[in-house]
Amino acid sequence: MNVEYINPFLSSLVNVLSTMANTKIVPGQPRIKKDEVAQGDVSGLIGMVGPTMKGSFSVSFDESLALEIMFRMLGERPTKINPDVTDMVGEITNMVTGGAKRILGEKGYDFTMATPIIVSGKSHTITHKCEGPTILMPFTSDFGKVHIEVSFDK
Amino acid sequence: MNVEYINPFLSSLVNVLSTMANTKIVPGQPRIKKDEVAQGDVSGLIGMVGPTMKGSFSVSFDESLALEIMFRMLGERPTKINPDVTDMVGEITNMVTGGAKRILGEKGYDFTMATPIIVSGKSHTITHKCEGPTILMPFTSDFGKVHIEVSFDK
Repeated sequence: MNVEYINPFLSSLVNVLSTMANTKIVPGQPRIKKDEVAQGDVSGLIGMVGPTMKGSFSVSFDESLALEIMFRMLGERPTKINPDVTDMVGEITNMVTGGAKRILGEKGYDFTMATPIIVSGKSHTITHKCEGPTILMPFTSDFGKVHIEVSFDK
Repeated sequence: MNVEYINPFLSSLVNVLSTMANTKIVPGQPRIKKDEVAQGDVSGLIGMVGPTMKGSFSVSFDESLALEIMFRMLGERPTKINPDVTDMVGEITNMVTGGAKRILGEKGYDFTMATPIIVSGKSHTITHKCEGPTILMPFTSDFGKVHIEVSFDK
């Protein structure tokens, strides 16, 4: 897997949060995840299966940022992660992966998305079990951190 | 999705833990997950994509049970969930889904497995975002609890 394959996911997340939630996030340095541990409070995960590749994607939010996005998208401000927030994170996961799928499809990398899974729990960590490396891309915002991880078998 | 589709995953998990780790788990009552929250300390998740269906599977262990399985499978007894334990949970996730895939394939339900994702974090919860219901199947053992969740779009 080429580090550049993270770019469609990166631009798709920036775009979704900007257009849907008027929220600006600032990309940090993308890197290959080795022993590093990246924590989040609510994460959206999705599997991807194509004719020549398979893999997985995750996006992990700090609780503070997820709740702010919830407020900006839907006008509700829950005090903690509830089913409405996990629904929203599932939607964002679908939109970001769908956006990346279109871009990667134009480059000849086709895949079908499985259905998203949401994880809630203070400071959980995620490990993608792929033969290829996992690429980690951190972002900062005024309301907390978010990071994405992408791994493909090719 | 029919509640019976959980059975291949159920029997596959019982079989894998029995043969690989000499660990007996006792099935509880399968049910459709509604507002219920089921917690785990380490979970393996996997996406499934087929020509006519897609979905997701998760298996969530109490830490105490995951560490006991680790000891029985590999002779190591770590004091907490570490990368060796997440590797093992990834393997179990692959084996259980692979076993279920064979059984469901014989019934005409074909799918390809994405790559597994492991979540670590005390008392996290998982939400499958499918159009179909999520089926929850709890198990008990002498060393703690484990549960599986399966959801398909059909």
